[in-house]
Amino acid sequence: MVGATLARDLASDLNLSVTAADVDGERLRKLDNIPRLQTRVADLSSPGALKNLIQDFDLVVGALPSRFGFAALKTVVECGKCYSDISFMPEDALELDAVAKRTGATAVVDCGVSPGLSNMMIGFAHANLDRTDCAEIYVGGLPFARHWPFEYKAPFAPSDVVEEYTRPARLIENGQVVTRPALSEPELLDFGKVGTLEAFNTDGLRSLLKTVFITNMREKTLRYPGHIELMRVFRETGFFSKTPIDVGGVSVKPLDVTSRLLFPKWANTVDEEEFTVLRVIVKGIRSGKPFQYTFDLFDTTDRTTKTSSMARTTAFPCAIVARMLLTDKQREAGVFAPESVAAKPGVFDSMVEQLRSRGVMIETVKTVG
Amino acid sequence: MVGATLARDLASDLNLSVTAADVDGERLRKLDNIPRLQTRVADLSSPGALKNLIQDFDLVVGALPSRFGFAALKTVVECGKCYSDISFMPEDALELDAVAKRTGATAVVDCGVSPGLSNMMIGFAHANLDRTDCAEIYVGGLPFARHWPFEYKAPFAPSDVVEEYTRPARLIENGQVVTRPALSEPELLDFGKVGTLEAFNTDGLRSLLKTVFITNMREKTLRYPGHIELMRVFRETGFFSKTPIDVGGVSVKPLDVTSRLLFPKWANTVDEEEFTVLRVIVKGIRSGKPFQYTFDLFDTTDRTTKTSSMARTTAFPCAIVARMLLTDKQREAGVFAPESVAAKPGVFDSMVEQLRSRGVMIETVKTVG
Repeated sequence: MVGATLARDLASDLNLSVTAADVDGERLRKLDNIPRLQTRVADLSSPGALKNLIQDFDLVVGALPSRFGFAALKTVVECGKCYSDISFMPEDALELDAVAKRTGATAVVDCGVSPGLSNMMIGFAHANLDRTDCAEIYVGGLPFARHWPFEYKAPFAPSDVVEEYTRPARLIENGQVVTRPALSEPELLDFGKVGTLEAFNTDGLRSLLKTVFITNMREKTLRYPGHIELMRVFRETGFFSKTPIDVGGVSVKPLDVTSRLLFPKWANTVDEEEFTVLRVIVKGIRSGKPFQYTFDLFDTTDRTTKTSSMARTTAFPCAIVARMLLTDKQREAGVFAPESVAAKPGVFDSMVEQLRSRGVMIETVKTVG
Repeated sequence: MVGATLARDLASDLNLSVTAADVDGERLRKLDNIPRLQTRVADLSSPGALKNLIQDFDLVVGALPSRFGFAALKTVVECGKCYSDISFMPEDALELDAVAKRTGATAVVDCGVSPGLSNMMIGFAHANLDRTDCAEIYVGGLPFARHWPFEYKAPFAPSDVVEEYTRPARLIENGQVVTRPALSEPELLDFGKVGTLEAFNTDGLRSLLKTVFITNMREKTLRYPGHIELMRVFRETGFFSKTPIDVGGVSVKPLDVTSRLLFPKWANTVDEEEFTVLRVIVKGIRSGKPFQYTFDLFDTTDRTTKTSSMARTTAFPCAIVARMLLTDKQREAGVFAPESVAAKPGVFDSMVEQLRSRGVMIETVKTVG
């Protein structure tokens, strides 16, 4: 879903010649209605096939299942290509920085909404503060209609949602990385357009744990109030467990059963309008005074193109970074996180401007004292 | 657990010679410490074995798994014996009334707390009112300690508890039997000693649906507030379903998985103190004026004998009915529900008095006007 939005955005650019590749020809046929877009069937999980595919291109955009993400990044970097990626691999992409510097490749990973825009907001604010004390990310993708009991539709793979509910969250407190249980420290926050949401710790800092030194940093994910409590009940009763149990002579993983029952309830239909909310608060000192940046993004389903806000806010930053890489005359080789890219003068403002032209609005409020 | 309390109560009576039977010799050995009690291993699910066992006894007391209940009742009735029963069979016990009248047997079924005492309260009140308009039963067995998230320990088989959460509830409204979903019409009620509890419709009227004509009648079960909501979530998401689903190539019933995960959380330990609460409200007209009976029973774990209130309030009424049958000089043949027995003068007062001597207190409040 995000890939199609990415392809459509890039193909609309008359300066670009764009080819979309997928292992599944059926899926590519859904892109037939996009003007000027070429398609090619290729097994992107195979480094050899990927290498063959990309050799004639200046730039590669990655929107792969996370399990293929790192291998694909490695191939692209070894080929010395530019790369803008939203594959959200579990591995540390920055480990390939040295390879990229050797081959002349420039790769920017995690170019979505969060990770992605959230990192850029922090990178931008951090670069503009004399000292940064605190950065907080609040992010969520939710349906407008709240259906009992979960009041939730998964905008990406439900299994990845359950990961957010089970994987301990790493955050930075007083300069130290600390680990908190998933779903911990629930907190109610008000978002004018959608009312009160509940935030909980998630393990989303990723590259921020290494790239910037900010004394206190955390990511929290947003749901309608009550969802977290239900998910804690499911988790603590064992319904998210991957350890097989014996049930009447057969061995089953509780999570497999839960997935079968729960995930259909979380399935989003095309017609169901949703929104994406991102709030990033960065506090520090500037010119001797306390200074705060508050970034707010609020985006909703595009009714005309039937594109979800999650697809829009994930695909557009990646497409914009791709264009930046193509036009950057001082392009530096390496593998970069978005916060590093946004620390450069002009980058964040340009990102905000290009998102605005696509209808995705970011409001930045600066508070002194 | 209830059987042992029953056996202990009856064996303490110097006028009785009591034998306890079970298919499991191990279980019988746990009764070794009860003075004057004989034990015998017998397969009570076999009508032949049961017939052989009971032939030398004047009275039989039944505390069987409900699936054997009806067959056992039939055997006892065919043998012309007296019977006091808490097997809570799903079948209609009163169908055997004609057989009992022929053989001279007297059987009283559903002699526990609810069904049991609740029926007696209604039968007694109904007999003492000129017209009965409404009877409401509120009953629950709960732990004192409220452990997140279920705040519940099952005082009987957890699978029977789930039955209460899934089987539609039959109740009487304006003289008609109507069916409501289980867990429906939640209602908060205050019980001085334990605070606010939440009541929901359960299918517990049983014989009352046929034996008495009361224009409005319902049974509601009590839990701590919040439990019902969780159970509705589990049920509506399919976790209580008995229809097998395919999970990674194996077929499993979701309820089997849920049972494996949920029931250990509901397991009561011996040391965990619990209580049983029963409130029955019967409204009608007496001598031309509105008249209301309110019966309240509140019982807690007996710390000395480590007997749960659920075992006490279920076993004692059954044991008391057994004694009533043995000493009743006008004993009538037939199969009776407790409400019919309690409609006879003196029976309910005697039950209340004998329960009081065992520490189970029933408070009866009469309100005129």
